[in-house]
Amino acid sequence: MTVPEFKTLRRTYGFDEVAIVPGGLTVNPEQVEIDFKIGNINFSIPFIASAMDAVTNVDTAVAMSKMGGLSVLHLEGIYTRYENPQEILDQIISKPIDEVTAFMQKVYTAEPIKEHLIAKRVSEIKAKGGICAVSIMPANAKKLAPVAVEAGADIISVASTVTSARHVSKSSHGLIFEEFVKMIKVPVLVGNCVSYQACLELMRTGVHGVIIGVGPGAACTSREVLGIGVPQITASMDCAAARETYYKETGRYVPIITDGGFKKGGDVCKAICAGADAVMLGSPFAKAAEAPGRGYHWGMSHPHPSLPRGTRIKVGTTGSLEQILFGPTSVTDGTQNMVGALKTSMGVCGASNIREMQQVEMVIAPAITTEGKSYQLSKCQ
Amino acid sequence: MTVPEFKTLRRTYGFDEVAIVPGGLTVNPEQVEIDFKIGNINFSIPFIASAMDAVTNVDTAVAMSKMGGLSVLHLEGIYTRYENPQEILDQIISKPIDEVTAFMQKVYTAEPIKEHLIAKRVSEIKAKGGICAVSIMPANAKKLAPVAVEAGADIISVASTVTSARHVSKSSHGLIFEEFVKMIKVPVLVGNCVSYQACLELMRTGVHGVIIGVGPGAACTSREVLGIGVPQITASMDCAAARETYYKETGRYVPIITDGGFKKGGDVCKAICAGADAVMLGSPFAKAAEAPGRGYHWGMSHPHPSLPRGTRIKVGTTGSLEQILFGPTSVTDGTQNMVGALKTSMGVCGASNIREMQQVEMVIAPAITTEGKSYQLSKCQ
Amino acid sequence: MTVPEFKTLRRTYGFDEVAIVPGGLTVNPEQVEIDFKIGNINFSIPFIASAMDAVTNVDTAVAMSKMGGLSVLHLEGIYTRYENPQEILDQIISKPIDEVTAFMQKVYTAEPIKEHLIAKRVSEIKAKGGICAVSIMPANAKKLAPVAVEAGADIISVASTVTSARHVSKSSHGLIFEEFVKMIKVPVLVGNCVSYQACLELMRTGVHGVIIGVGPGAACTSREVLGIGVPQITASMDCAAARETYYKETGRYVPIITDGGFKKGGDVCKAICAGADAVMLGSPFAKAAEAPGRGYHWGMSHPHPSLPRGTRIKVGTTGSLEQILFGPTSVTDGTQNMVGALKTSMGVCGASNIREMQQVEMVIAPAITTEGKSYQLSKCQ
Amino acid sequence: MTVPEFKTLRRTYGFDEVAIVPGGLTVNPEQVEIDFKIGNINFSIPFIASAMDAVTNVDTAVAMSKMGGLSVLHLEGIYTRYENPQEILDQIISKPIDEVTAFMQKVYTAEPIKEHLIAKRVSEIKAKGGICAVSIMPANAKKLAPVAVEAGADIISVASTVTSARHVSKSSHGLIFEEFVKMIKVPVLVGNCVSYQACLELMRTGVHGVIIGVGPGAACTSREVLGIGVPQITASMDCAAARETYYKETGRYVPIITDGGFKKGGDVCKAICAGADAVMLGSPFAKAAEAPGRGYHWGMSHPHPSLPRGTRIKVGTTGSLEQILFGPTSVTDGTQNMVGALKTSMGVCGASNIREMQQVEMVIAPAITTEGKSYQLSKCQ
Repeated sequence: MTVPEFKTLRRTYGFDEVAIVPGGLTVNPEQVEIDFKIGNINFSIPFIASAMDAVTNVDTAVAMSKMGGLSVLHLEGIYTRYENPQEILDQIISKPIDEVTAFMQKVYTAEPIKEHLIAKRVSEIKAKGGICAVSIMPANAKKLAPVAVEAGADIISVASTVTSARHVSKSSHGLIFEEFVKMIKVPVLVGNCVSYQACLELMRTGVHGVIIGVGPGAACTSREVLGIGVPQITASMDCAAARETYYKETGRYVPIITDGGFKKGGDVCKAICAGADAVMLGSPFAKAAEAPGRGYHWGMSHPHPSLPRGTRIKVGTTGSLEQILFGPTSVTDGTQNMVGALKTSMGVCGASNIREMQQVEMVIAPAITTEGKSYQLSKCQ
Repeated sequence: MTVPEFKTLRRTYGFDEVAIVPGGLTVNPEQVEIDFKIGNINFSIPFIASAMDAVTNVDTAVAMSKMGGLSVLHLEGIYTRYENPQEILDQIISKPIDEVTAFMQKVYTAEPIKEHLIAKRVSEIKAKGGICAVSIMPANAKKLAPVAVEAGADIISVASTVTSARHVSKSSHGLIFEEFVKMIKVPVLVGNCVSYQACLELMRTGVHGVIIGVGPGAACTSREVLGIGVPQITASMDCAAARETYYKETGRYVPIITDGGFKKGGDVCKAICAGADAVMLGSPFAKAAEAPGRGYHWGMSHPHPSLPRGTRIKVGTTGSLEQILFGPTSVTDGTQNMVGALKTSMGVCGASNIREMQQVEMVIAPAITTEGKSYQLSKCQ
Repeated sequence: MTVPEFKTLRRTYGFDEVAIVPGGLTVNPEQVEIDFKIGNINFSIPFIASAMDAVTNVDTAVAMSKMGGLSVLHLEGIYTRYENPQEILDQIISKPIDEVTAFMQKVYTAEPIKEHLIAKRVSEIKAKGGICAVSIMPANAKKLAPVAVEAGADIISVASTVTSARHVSKSSHGLIFEEFVKMIKVPVLVGNCVSYQACLELMRTGVHGVIIGVGPGAACTSREVLGIGVPQITASMDCAAARETYYKETGRYVPIITDGGFKKGGDVCKAICAGADAVMLGSPFAKAAEAPGRGYHWGMSHPHPSLPRGTRIKVGTTGSLEQILFGPTSVTDGTQNMVGALKTSMGVCGASNIREMQQVEMVIAPAITTEGKSYQLSKCQ
Repeated sequence: MTVPEFKTLRRTYGFDEVAIVPGGLTVNPEQVEIDFKIGNINFSIPFIASAMDAVTNVDTAVAMSKMGGLSVLHLEGIYTRYENPQEILDQIISKPIDEVTAFMQKVYTAEPIKEHLIAKRVSEIKAKGGICAVSIMPANAKKLAPVAVEAGADIISVASTVTSARHVSKSSHGLIFEEFVKMIKVPVLVGNCVSYQACLELMRTGVHGVIIGVGPGAACTSREVLGIGVPQITASMDCAAARETYYKETGRYVPIITDGGFKKGGDVCKAICAGADAVMLGSPFAKAAEAPGRGYHWGMSHPHPSLPRGTRIKVGTTGSLEQILFGPTSVTDGTQNMVGALKTSMGVCGASNIREMQQVEMVIAPAITTEGKSYQLSKCQ
């Protein structure tokens, strides 16, 4: 008896399941270009630090800018609720693990978002010479974005777990991205999404970049709690296909930024090979000596008051931001000198720039074996 | 040389192997409807507690009803064999692990099922204002179901490991579901089954709901002992296809209830996305403060006297039944606020009701990686 | 660029990767028949104990016969080299693990195979009322088989790691199975093989049964040392296809016996569903109180003098041979009451006999998950 | 909605995922031939020891030659930078693990490569009667290869992580393999590569052998750091396809040497079945009593000064080089008597020589299971 198919399930892939294939051409890594653009703003490296309180504060935003990348400050977290944010961060860091989620649920709601603090944080970043990118939830975008732009913000990111161009709500004041982009004079990033259709529809609203990633990482609690998520290689490939479709339709190139699930340099190389124009990283930068989380990290920008999907984890402090990005290093696990790793990877794959790296062959090659790790190094040319 | 194929093996999928894909539409979770119907009885949430002695007693049946769901009392377990069931449950709980299976084999056979206790348990549930659903094995259905209905039972569930519309036995008094459904005036659930054909044939007998699930969970002992089982995503999809076929044939909508293998809220979201109308959970509810198992659970409704396929496990007590269903919670692993999780998941996927959630895209996305868990949280938007 | 395919790789499956699917029919387990035939000799259960020194001696051969199955005595091991074999077995058992392989290499070569001991062992089994099946390597078959048959052996098994109908050797006295079968008047089993072609060619020599299995089990050292092996579900399916082809060609039904890799009752059910007529088990029977290995087992019938592929493992003693086969039991992991498990599995799958069980649907359902075991029991109807 | 495919991902396979299938023919292992040729130089066994400082020094190069194989001396490591290399090796071995990578980064750059030491090492190998093969990086090939050939080197290997026939560099003095092969009068090996196209293009330059392998092994740090790599079974198959294409085009047979990721004899058998003509091993030979690493091994020939991709691991000393190659052994894990294992494997698969072994069937048979190892041995015929 033939069983009618209720639903088709497509196989998707994450970082650990693929590998890049060097081919018939190689390029000297010193000749590789990895620059990247949002609107008319240029970045010499395609690395963005997440809008998470343990990762990005005023100082790291400035530092990342100066190294050629970008760091996004969240406007709905500690920094715009408290005059002295580090005091609160330190309390989060020092709480016992079984109390920390409840404590975070409290501190992220005890104080409201203050408009004067938004203006203050933006001004601080600009005053110190940084490019200022800030992140807002869709519900507050129309209200808070103008405050930030007024204060000098260069880029607005409108982001939540899942953001779509079409939203059903009884509220009559929903966010219309077409209008929002016109109202805001600076480049707008929107996220997150993972599907071809959702990404294409967002691009058609006129935004300047789309952030890709829902529930990446196998143990991500969005997968556990909500059952949703698409592994990042497939999400990047599908949204890269949307970018190409949109580019063919309009001639406008809207970069996609793969966000989340990165553990090491190899993952960055794979995301770009899968079609990303840039990458957004949280925990790898939470390990920086400069990180406000001081060796700790929490998965969500802020925990949901009745259904939290992430808690505080210890990531340790392993080196300076510069070392993490540019080395040199004696660490062999791919967590430092990620720019060097990307350039070397592009070189051995014969890619002179990001667009060429997106064309390199990639294969499915699961990193799972029966054997322990100790023997696997064996011969690693 | 071409090898003739002796048998075709189709790939099947379980909860841990799939993920739901948010698309181009989102809905405000507050506008999501999740109600569900058995016959003409309405439930505001599609959650059913299993007919297992550690999960459902008179009080939890009443409590679940009042919260909008359902709890099924087993009529062949401790509650109808012993006047004072909690005394026996406490003995099961306090036995050392290496003696408990033999002890359970004894207490489940030492006393017969007593009809006056059936009537008593049903009356107690009704007296306290609950909807009364009871579970009976096929062999005893014709004898015990009338007793329960007489006492006021609202729903009869006829369930065993595998139940089919066609059964071969030397006994001349086999159960004919067509006749049984007509004899019993209340809605009838039947289970368990996992295949399109078996489910379709059961629906054609006139039953009011079919329970789906044989040997779910990778380590389920039905898989170990008997080799049988189908992972729940595929089982739900195949039986949902049977429901659609039957609905097209007759215009009658027979809900399917995916039963077993759930560990967290995300699994519930996936089962419904795979086609389920409701879910039946054991161990997640055995963790409730109100559960008769007091932090312990046993896999089978009662152990087979010569070939047991489950033993007692400790699940712990983690919160109230209300907290498990509705939160609020500071737990981030998806075991609490499962109703909130379902509504949020449906919202980000643009589904306004259960039927729409069944249409959302799902992908194969194995939750298996080389790396440990600690790093995987990383960035979980 | 299209890459020419150097070699096609087909996916194969082992016990842990599949599950049996109950369908639209069920049968009362008490009405299920599981008998099996080699030549004209009938067995009431399709269970055979391996020709391994830790599993089969004179007494277990007799005991298995009396319970309806078969136990094969190896004629090239301890029993035909030493007058008092248990003395040697006890020495193997008591050696420290790091000395035992070298010790076994020694005791299996220190004494030659003695024809009078062959006659003696066969006579002992027959005198005690057992069916006598003996195993010989191909190189010695022409010399030793007549000795065993003369002494009363009922079945001759000619077995090595891989045995084929076509063998290239400089020796002019190679074994021709067509001639051997005619010379030996009792039924002949041959093994092992795993492919359709090899099995078909062996059947065409006129043998009465083929033993299936090369390197089963993921960690089997034939896989480690030689790289060879086919997981047992695929091997059984491919050789069952050969049996059907041969049956269509000739009308003669040659049973296949799946040998090795079994851990529990569910594996036996799966092997038969995959096409096996009977199963041959080593370690599950090494756990019997009657086993000569006294709780220990070694993987090969005897270790190779310069390239051993198995060592001694501790399996423990868990119950009597009768309990392992027929129960009753309080063990829930499928290692006891394997006959009851097979009948129950066949019943829920609607199979009245072995031939019908071979027609039941089977699916690919990997028993691998991220989560630990403790939660997976959850609800196991 | 149909999603356009941004990139096609092909599934690739490693050693642990495949197994060789014995078929309808067997050959006496004593009649199996395993010889192999580079240019006009014959080797009686297809085993090559890696150009890594912990594996190959003057003495092991001589020893491997005398046993019928080959050992390649790296000309850019310790041996050509230091008069007394063992002194440096001993320092590497004795460093604490957290200091060793930095220490290696230092010693591999503190002293330059000295031409007189190149000449000295080559002369030593020749004087002791060995075949002398030396390895050079592409950037130094034109300068150092003539020095080695002048001193008597028999084979030149030009190898780096990825080497291609086409290389883009601002440097005007790039290596042109066509010219290099003509300039150097001895056979030239080139590596490493993994793709059909890259291998074919390298063969068309006139080289005498191609080394296959980039990032083999699941935990190889090239996979972690750069994201690149192809599992060795697929890499060997694709490059074997290139060899066949080139052979059909030209009639010239250029052997491919699969390099890296080998843990045991079975892996060697699988590589050859996948199309390799010979194998190159590091850590299996680092375990030899004669190995300069004295029980330690480091994955790269030498660590990159700012982006190292391997560190020192302890492999232990398990036996003599002769035992590892030829046995006899009491070890059952496939790490000793690898020549015996290859011949036995070829015999049971009916292959009389390497070319026939390349034609034997291979299947996908993952070595991954839920269960622990202890039970898996069970019955291993």
